[in-house]
Amino acid sequence: MFKVIKLYSIPARHTPSLVKYRSASQIPQLSSEKYKVKRKDFSTVQANDVNYFKSVLGEDRVLTEEDDVLSFNIDWIRNCRGQSKVVLKPKSTEEVSQILSYCNERRLAVCPQGGNTGVVGGSVPVFDEIILNLGLLNKVISLDDISGALVCETGCVLEKLDNYVRQHGLIMPLDLGAKGSCHIGGNVSTNAGGLRLLRYGNLHGSVLGIEAVKADGTVIDCLKTLKKDNTGYHLKHLFIGSEGTLGVVTKVAIHCPAMPKAVTLGYFGVENFEKVLQLYKSAKSSLGEILSAFEMADFDSISSTARILNLPNPISDFPFYVILETHGSDEDHDKEKLHRFLTNEMKSGLILDGTITSEPSKMQAVWNIRENIAPAGIVGTYLFTFDVSLPMKNYYEIIPKLRQRLGNKVNLVFGFGHIGDGNLHINVVMPEYTREVAELLEPYVFEEVSALQGSISAEHGVGFRKPHYIHYSKDRSALGLMRQIKTLMDPNGILNPYKVLPDE
Amino acid sequence: MFKVIKLYSIPARHTPSLVKYRSASQIPQLSSEKYKVKRKDFSTVQANDVNYFKSVLGEDRVLTEEDDVLSFNIDWIRNCRGQSKVVLKPKSTEEVSQILSYCNERRLAVCPQGGNTGVVGGSVPVFDEIILNLGLLNKVISLDDISGALVCETGCVLEKLDNYVRQHGLIMPLDLGAKGSCHIGGNVSTNAGGLRLLRYGNLHGSVLGIEAVKADGTVIDCLKTLKKDNTGYHLKHLFIGSEGTLGVVTKVAIHCPAMPKAVTLGYFGVENFEKVLQLYKSAKSSLGEILSAFEMADFDSISSTARILNLPNPISDFPFYVILETHGSDEDHDKEKLHRFLTNEMKSGLILDGTITSEPSKMQAVWNIRENIAPAGIVGTYLFTFDVSLPMKNYYEIIPKLRQRLGNKVNLVFGFGHIGDGNLHINVVMPEYTREVAELLEPYVFEEVSALQGSISAEHGVGFRKPHYIHYSKDRSALGLMRQIKTLMDPNGILNPYKVLPDE
Repeated sequence: MFKVIKLYSIPARHTPSLVKYRSASQIPQLSSEKYKVKRKDFSTVQANDVNYFKSVLGEDRVLTEEDDVLSFNIDWIRNCRGQSKVVLKPKSTEEVSQILSYCNERRLAVCPQGGNTGVVGGSVPVFDEIILNLGLLNKVISLDDISGALVCETGCVLEKLDNYVRQHGLIMPLDLGAKGSCHIGGNVSTNAGGLRLLRYGNLHGSVLGIEAVKADGTVIDCLKTLKKDNTGYHLKHLFIGSEGTLGVVTKVAIHCPAMPKAVTLGYFGVENFEKVLQLYKSAKSSLGEILSAFEMADFDSISSTARILNLPNPISDFPFYVILETHGSDEDHDKEKLHRFLTNEMKSGLILDGTITSEPSKMQAVWNIRENIAPAGIVGTYLFTFDVSLPMKNYYEIIPKLRQRLGNKVNLVFGFGHIGDGNLHINVVMPEYTREVAELLEPYVFEEVSALQGSISAEHGVGFRKPHYIHYSKDRSALGLMRQIKTLMDPNGILNPYKVLPDE
Repeated sequence: MFKVIKLYSIPARHTPSLVKYRSASQIPQLSSEKYKVKRKDFSTVQANDVNYFKSVLGEDRVLTEEDDVLSFNIDWIRNCRGQSKVVLKPKSTEEVSQILSYCNERRLAVCPQGGNTGVVGGSVPVFDEIILNLGLLNKVISLDDISGALVCETGCVLEKLDNYVRQHGLIMPLDLGAKGSCHIGGNVSTNAGGLRLLRYGNLHGSVLGIEAVKADGTVIDCLKTLKKDNTGYHLKHLFIGSEGTLGVVTKVAIHCPAMPKAVTLGYFGVENFEKVLQLYKSAKSSLGEILSAFEMADFDSISSTARILNLPNPISDFPFYVILETHGSDEDHDKEKLHRFLTNEMKSGLILDGTITSEPSKMQAVWNIRENIAPAGIVGTYLFTFDVSLPMKNYYEIIPKLRQRLGNKVNLVFGFGHIGDGNLHINVVMPEYTREVAELLEPYVFEEVSALQGSISAEHGVGFRKPHYIHYSKDRSALGLMRQIKTLMDPNGILNPYKVLPDE
């Protein structure tokens, strides 16, 4: 059987894209069994097919050994496991095009895979889909440091890109906990949001151009670096957030904003959620254009993460924590604004205690805790994670409701997220997966969110885990049009099957 | 024949959506004759059809009198004239749906029309398409002043919306010269950019949701007000910038940023274009996050506008002018940043002279000139206008080239636009339309722009005037996919025919 395993710890700030499994007990159940899915009528990979792939990619970039393929079949939260026999590692758009064209002809299903940091099973196969791992498409193509336009290949790791553009006085317009592993192409394909959407906007706004390969191998070249280009339909948006089901993103052009000259971080303890909301309103008003992040995490989010990963928490215990960050062009002005805000809100009682710092190592210590809340949830335990959008006034209501509903069937229920975007992450931690808890959670969470006109997936996407819940957020007419577009772009349905759209 | 006409002057800051034509000499040639277009095989409107429309809308909202219909057939720059016999004025999404469903069955072509402020003939018919004027769909539906989400009907005038949200401490995320007439639905359908894209981003980033009606009458409801919603394909983007050819936008949800507490405007004279660019770089660095607009206009842009519309120019004559605006949350901080910038750049010689003001009436006086550059071009003259994106370093090169190429065949050639977006507007003013000048301009301008990897239509769109030039900005694969999507969404091709996509 598969080799050994144990996932003891997570490297700080990184979600593991390729974990080496060393204990059989850590290998999750097959998705097809766990979720009772029926294989669709695709062809199966034959020796001839493997030979073809080797003729295109060479021997080295076609993995077929069970051991080599295993980790590509499993998502990092160990929720989903596919049964692929082949991993392909193209190095160019042309190779991707050749592979897809062949698979389309042969009716071989394909699962495109970036950094494999998703949490809805979108980036691992369900059955024996060929894994098209894009990690070797990882070159920066160009950077215009005046306009801020970066052009790069799909497999570039977000953090590496950020380090690169910082050398040119720019930053990437998105930042998320998985930055050390996630790929820009995966970010684009899933319309990733992250920590600073509040300030720098979403990817539909900041992606300037895309090159993508359709299921039949056609390369769609919309790789312009222009901020404005109203010539025909804005095709690039079809590939943003469609999770690899309409095409495989191979190159991305993206607008990088100027690196702030001054960065300051505030980390505050707050008495209750109502006061977190009031603090957000006050920050928006007092800090205005320099506010770059406003994150909230409840006590269990922070304390369990600090404990499990042995990270120091710079302030003592509070029911709620707020992480607030400013990006500005004048340190004195920013400090003055922040000081005024802090003085007022200590006086008003919205902030109970806290710390403000501009020291990179201290800021990093706080971000380390925040960004590891999700990864910490899987260390030695099983994690259910939800990612919802809600009206601000109802934002936190669901957490106490869930605690009551689940009682001692689980270890912890906690909530954290991006207040300014109305985006709450809900984590439910338990010793191991049980159907009982799964059924208490789903569709309950989606029903609650839908009743409040929220989104059942704010930024994590639909993937494999949520297609049958998508109707909680999208109506029949929209789903009908989505299906038509899928059929148009991928008539044989080979791209990332079992994902995003539910069966009719 | 048609009644009378003369368009003597333009009301300041407004492009005229419905000009009353009082002199036959002002009625432009029919587009079909001027541009030698062949009518496609649609049905023609019969008495029965008019009766059906009256049964849906009532007598008052179906215009068929020649006099009443005329102004809806002509675009405001008097370049295009259609031959429609019927204007329909729906008041609800249901009415739009009923009309389109009927027209689709009957193969009657439809031209959706917003404020009719476009400059590429996209919002007027070419032959006898039914004009679907959306001006009565003009209600605000809701405003959440914490999240900033505004929901409104398609026919709301941009300036009215801005006035409305300002009462709640917010501003619209876009602003353009035509704001007094243009509709939010038209803005969305054409992906309008405008003056503050630099700061508040584009509509793909700020539109939260859309309700649109497909050609067959199906209502596509993607009208969520959430900042983040990754559930399925992001359909709303299909309707942003597709110029009414894929569906008719009926409602819009849009994110409104906070109204700045402090607004300051700088209006500067600059010696040459190279220095305009240097000044932009300096402003980005010195003013950072408070920079909300950076516009450039050459001497002829400003002086001709000031002269024709009798608007005072607050500073004397310079080869180039820069209008720079800041939006901030602390007046003292902003003034300090701006003062430092001004002192440095007066000393460096980048700024020759100028004025800085926070007085609303004085700021308005400067914006009045800038926003009337385009309208002023049509007062008593014929205007060719281009709207291109270019790399910054090549931004202005084409203006002197055109002056040389056109010589005294035209009155004036001038350039102005949004430096930060690489977006240049080129105006060519002449006594009346001549084919000779038209042929000197097109495709020359597009060839020059294409050679620099620019866009032949940065924000004005493709409309009727540019489909046969679209290949200068989009390749075969992209055009092929656009055609497939058009066929999918509007199989009978009834929506805004002769626009956006070229004939195969």
